[in-house]
Amino acid sequence: MTRPAISPDRLSHARKAAAEAGLDALLVTPGPDLRWLTGYDALPLERLTCLVVPADGDPFLVAPGLEVPAVLASPAGALGIDVVGWGETDDPYAAVAARLPSSMQRVALANRMWAEQVLRFEALWPDTTQTLTSEVLRDLRMRKGQDEVDALRRAGQAIDRVHARMAEFLRPGRTEREAGRDIATAILDEGHVSVDFVIVASGPNGASPHHEVSERVLEAGDPVVVDIGGTTDEGYCSDCTRTYTLGEPPPEFTTYFRVLHEAQLAACAQVRPGVTAESVDAAARGVIDDAGYGDAFIHRTGHGIGVESHEDPYIVAGNTEVLEPGMAFSIEPGIYLTGRHGARIEDIVVCTVDGIERLNTTDRDYAVLEA
Amino acid sequence: MTRPAISPDRLSHARKAAAEAGLDALLVTPGPDLRWLTGYDALPLERLTCLVVPADGDPFLVAPGLEVPAVLASPAGALGIDVVGWGETDDPYAAVAARLPSSMQRVALANRMWAEQVLRFEALWPDTTQTLTSEVLRDLRMRKGQDEVDALRRAGQAIDRVHARMAEFLRPGRTEREAGRDIATAILDEGHVSVDFVIVASGPNGASPHHEVSERVLEAGDPVVVDIGGTTDEGYCSDCTRTYTLGEPPPEFTTYFRVLHEAQLAACAQVRPGVTAESVDAAARGVIDDAGYGDAFIHRTGHGIGVESHEDPYIVAGNTEVLEPGMAFSIEPGIYLTGRHGARIEDIVVCTVDGIERLNTTDRDYAVLEA
Repeated sequence: MTRPAISPDRLSHARKAAAEAGLDALLVTPGPDLRWLTGYDALPLERLTCLVVPADGDPFLVAPGLEVPAVLASPAGALGIDVVGWGETDDPYAAVAARLPSSMQRVALANRMWAEQVLRFEALWPDTTQTLTSEVLRDLRMRKGQDEVDALRRAGQAIDRVHARMAEFLRPGRTEREAGRDIATAILDEGHVSVDFVIVASGPNGASPHHEVSERVLEAGDPVVVDIGGTTDEGYCSDCTRTYTLGEPPPEFTTYFRVLHEAQLAACAQVRPGVTAESVDAAARGVIDDAGYGDAFIHRTGHGIGVESHEDPYIVAGNTEVLEPGMAFSIEPGIYLTGRHGARIEDIVVCTVDGIERLNTTDRDYAVLEA
Repeated sequence: MTRPAISPDRLSHARKAAAEAGLDALLVTPGPDLRWLTGYDALPLERLTCLVVPADGDPFLVAPGLEVPAVLASPAGALGIDVVGWGETDDPYAAVAARLPSSMQRVALANRMWAEQVLRFEALWPDTTQTLTSEVLRDLRMRKGQDEVDALRRAGQAIDRVHARMAEFLRPGRTEREAGRDIATAILDEGHVSVDFVIVASGPNGASPHHEVSERVLEAGDPVVVDIGGTTDEGYCSDCTRTYTLGEPPPEFTTYFRVLHEAQLAACAQVRPGVTAESVDAAARGVIDDAGYGDAFIHRTGHGIGVESHEDPYIVAGNTEVLEPGMAFSIEPGIYLTGRHGARIEDIVVCTVDGIERLNTTDRDYAVLEA
């Protein structure tokens, strides 16, 4: 299950964009930027690992000596980057500085770099302006290539297979935690290498959008919101929500579920090149507002997805980003009635040249499971 | 499996230490400092969550509105902290700034805060010096209270139960990944709420200390290094390494394993109040050096552990920190023969008033499993 090759174009595009933006270098510690640029899924260790992409020179990767075999075994090993290992009593920041000019105007730090590293780099170059890699990588990561869309489609199919098995996991008498454990195993069995999150929100817990699991015992009549995702061996994330009911749900639930379903379809129908991210949010919100449930839709409509579960573009009021082919994001309106229950429908979609492709294709209606 | 209460003393001690250090406030985003201070194990979301501990005022927690139920359901909810929810189109940084004086001299940022947050806070208060929460929290977190030692002991017992079952998982013909999957399930079954890492390093993979799992098929005669850890419902981490062999190992392995075993015992024997961290490293290293394997012990002897898998104190040359009762850390020398195999023995230990308590108590010798 070796990760597939990463195109060296990503690094060369990043270097070119850095030069055009007047940056002297990108400093990329473990996290999504490093995964995207090199395919190296480094552990977030206290020992410094840092990919350096100088605007005017060859990239190199500073890593703890004992992680060098892991670097070379990862897709990063095939990119021909110079890997500089450091020993347990060496100063790795000095190893980064040694290969960069001492007078730099602007360096970009990975958005997820730790403060303790940010302050070390600031002390190293006190007269250098620090900015963020998102200044150049946001656009590159947000517009997915065909290889990335294909990888996201496979991730979507993997999580769809888990949802297709939900009758195995959700049964009256089991706790949310028990169901969640089995779902986590299924996420791995159906084609992911890691479980990113498992939300099993039954009955009143369904009214809290980010409830995870609890000791609550599933009961007949419960609506159950199941929002699950993982990362595949290709390094791309899945994320899909369906709402189930154990036997016949309360009449109130079926009433607002119809509204929700219509809202999710309206948002999907809005997606095409040239429209804004916020207009997709507005499409879903309008349907829910019109039906009188506006106060019960308490979050944005969606988030981008790729090597990170949540990334640009965000589908939220105020985001005037114009959609382009290759942008991938969730469409996940919800209706939450505090103390009673809730529902959410979420698909990952991609903006295509002439509209939209859904990457999650199971039935969006609530499935009635045996109670 | 609700997390147990967190003593409000942690927050009041942190506030007092901040005042003494001349800090105006601590800004604590999701991560180990937040877990230690409040028991809130926040998801690392792009939406800002930030605990603010003013040196001169009451702490408050700014969180996305839809996470507020999760905050209140966590141990943080019992601490009486004011929780300030923000809406999807609000500016959460403004919510932090609104309750702090505009002219602050020094603020401490959580060591694990993301660069994108660091730069936002810097822009908010351009004349304020940024430093790190470790300036005050390092000492508080490093000297464990009895409640913390008890929690680490329970974590140690949980991972010991997984090692005791290793014959179920390691068998010739299975891949490292298959064994690792079963071990991960056992980590959850035996008393953890999350799996932090699973290393199954068989045969030549055992020579790479941070190898995780691979498609390599276990073979008769393989030494197998198994280094595993998780986090319990109390929020404390386990971490234990044992080396196994599938049937009789190569004679060369048994030779250096005896050296390794002696080195691990020597390091344990060195632990007591008043000695330096580096002297514990030197105790292990001396035995291995004397036996001629010095070049094969390529990492430090250990790391602190608590709410984080790796934290202070580090057991490494150059660290002159003096051990005190309540300090908890790993002792994990290893010997690695590139291309052949390797071995590591790791216990979590606590420095006590008169010496050492081992929190992992299974046999340190290699166990010969059925081949």
